[in-house]
Amino acid sequence: MAKKVLIVYANQSSGSFNAPAKNTAVEVLAAQGCTVEVSDLYAMSFKASATAEDIKGDVKNAENFCYLEEAKLAWEQGQLSDDITREQSKLAEADLIIFQFPMYWFGVPAILKGWIDRVLTNGFAFSQEKCYSQGIFKDKRAMLSFTTGSLESMFSPTGINGDMNVTLWPLQNGILHYCGFQVLAPQIFWAPASAAAEDRKSMLESWSTRLQGLLEEKPLSFIPLDCFDEKAFQLKPDVHKKHASKEFGLTVGIHLNKPLPPHSQMKAGC
Amino acid sequence: MAKKVLIVYANQSSGSFNAPAKNTAVEVLAAQGCTVEVSDLYAMSFKASATAEDIKGDVKNAENFCYLEEAKLAWEQGQLSDDITREQSKLAEADLIIFQFPMYWFGVPAILKGWIDRVLTNGFAFSQEKCYSQGIFKDKRAMLSFTTGSLESMFSPTGINGDMNVTLWPLQNGILHYCGFQVLAPQIFWAPASAAAEDRKSMLESWSTRLQGLLEEKPLSFIPLDCFDEKAFQLKPDVHKKHASKEFGLTVGIHLNKPLPPHSQMKAGC
Repeated sequence: MAKKVLIVYANQSSGSFNAPAKNTAVEVLAAQGCTVEVSDLYAMSFKASATAEDIKGDVKNAENFCYLEEAKLAWEQGQLSDDITREQSKLAEADLIIFQFPMYWFGVPAILKGWIDRVLTNGFAFSQEKCYSQGIFKDKRAMLSFTTGSLESMFSPTGINGDMNVTLWPLQNGILHYCGFQVLAPQIFWAPASAAAEDRKSMLESWSTRLQGLLEEKPLSFIPLDCFDEKAFQLKPDVHKKHASKEFGLTVGIHLNKPLPPHSQMKAGC
Repeated sequence: MAKKVLIVYANQSSGSFNAPAKNTAVEVLAAQGCTVEVSDLYAMSFKASATAEDIKGDVKNAENFCYLEEAKLAWEQGQLSDDITREQSKLAEADLIIFQFPMYWFGVPAILKGWIDRVLTNGFAFSQEKCYSQGIFKDKRAMLSFTTGSLESMFSPTGINGDMNVTLWPLQNGILHYCGFQVLAPQIFWAPASAAAEDRKSMLESWSTRLQGLLEEKPLSFIPLDCFDEKAFQLKPDVHKKHASKEFGLTVGIHLNKPLPPHSQMKAGC
């Protein structure tokens, strides 16, 4: 069955390595029969800040304006601004979402954080009941594909920036998995700007090869929602006990005061 | 000596708990003789996205535009846009920077990420040599003060969102400590929107008490830059060896495949 792919692209320039990375994804996925749509955030001058202007007409409580609540209500009533609604339609149709960006300050660029803050509206993308493994987008896949300024060795458990698995946890667990997405392993282009031309070429070739099997990849492992109690959202005693003799924690965040499971935010099946 | 404090404030509404949290900081610090300046990002309509418009006049390489490089050059030549220059002047004068915001998606709101992406310019805030414990702002202090939607128990090593120390690492190490800031323990207001009025009141009282001694607090612990080699930025063998018999890793990120040091991103001296 033909799949629909949305690439959310956050780079200002065709001169960046992010441009051929995005183009490679478009080409390889289209060649497999996928329909590929690109949201080029800078080209769209995508609004990043979450403000009352995101809501058409009057807000419910202008004096005590709460973005989370007002956006939820506006989504329910079809009153979200057109730029948000357009992105939500693309997302609703997509089977796979690829976020392509340069890592800025151990995270996503502000314009992409704006897409996340504004498009993943309360009600549309999550609710208190529908989150994590029971999340609204549990039949969709999502992944991060990004360039770094640092070398791979710097992002290790003995490197100056620390373990990349730790840096990825808030993004992959807190955003993607929270909405239910099956999270594919990240595609990390390590320091392409300081790499030799032939190394940059081989990075793209390896991405191209991966893209050919991307739709069949197993996602990263997270803990099912029903392993937590419904009051304090703590790991249930039987799950905790079952894991007591294990060497590693369950995930990077839910580490049970044990060593982190190696590569768990970087490779499927870890 | 009178201290200068900059509060970078990211909230849309006076109805949010972030407003009295910010006001409490202004009042208590001013009462101690501090000069307090507030950058109210939403009120300023602060531009969040890093674009070529941040540079006055012609950019060096329009075709292969690279924000990091172009912004560095513009800073050196006094060609950064006025909104960035104004924030840089406030930051340069400040002894303490407090970031006050609601946590959005395990991180800072896009408008605040925009302040970070645009104001902490290459050259002004860091260089390859001047980073981490040798960072440009090593004589300044900085801290995060934020509200959550989740309860404290949910952000634990056995809670559904995982350990808050993990979520804080990219922000506190990758942004604040990277620029050299001495990072004070975060002030976390757990789920004030769903708390009883008396609990909200006591959160503010406890913040007010903390603020009275804030300028004398010990910062969080990070690893000195000279513990890493200058080529691959790996922990030097003697430092690694010295720590081999210890129970916990050095920090959340530089965990040496051991259990994370408890509370190391939450409390000084951990």
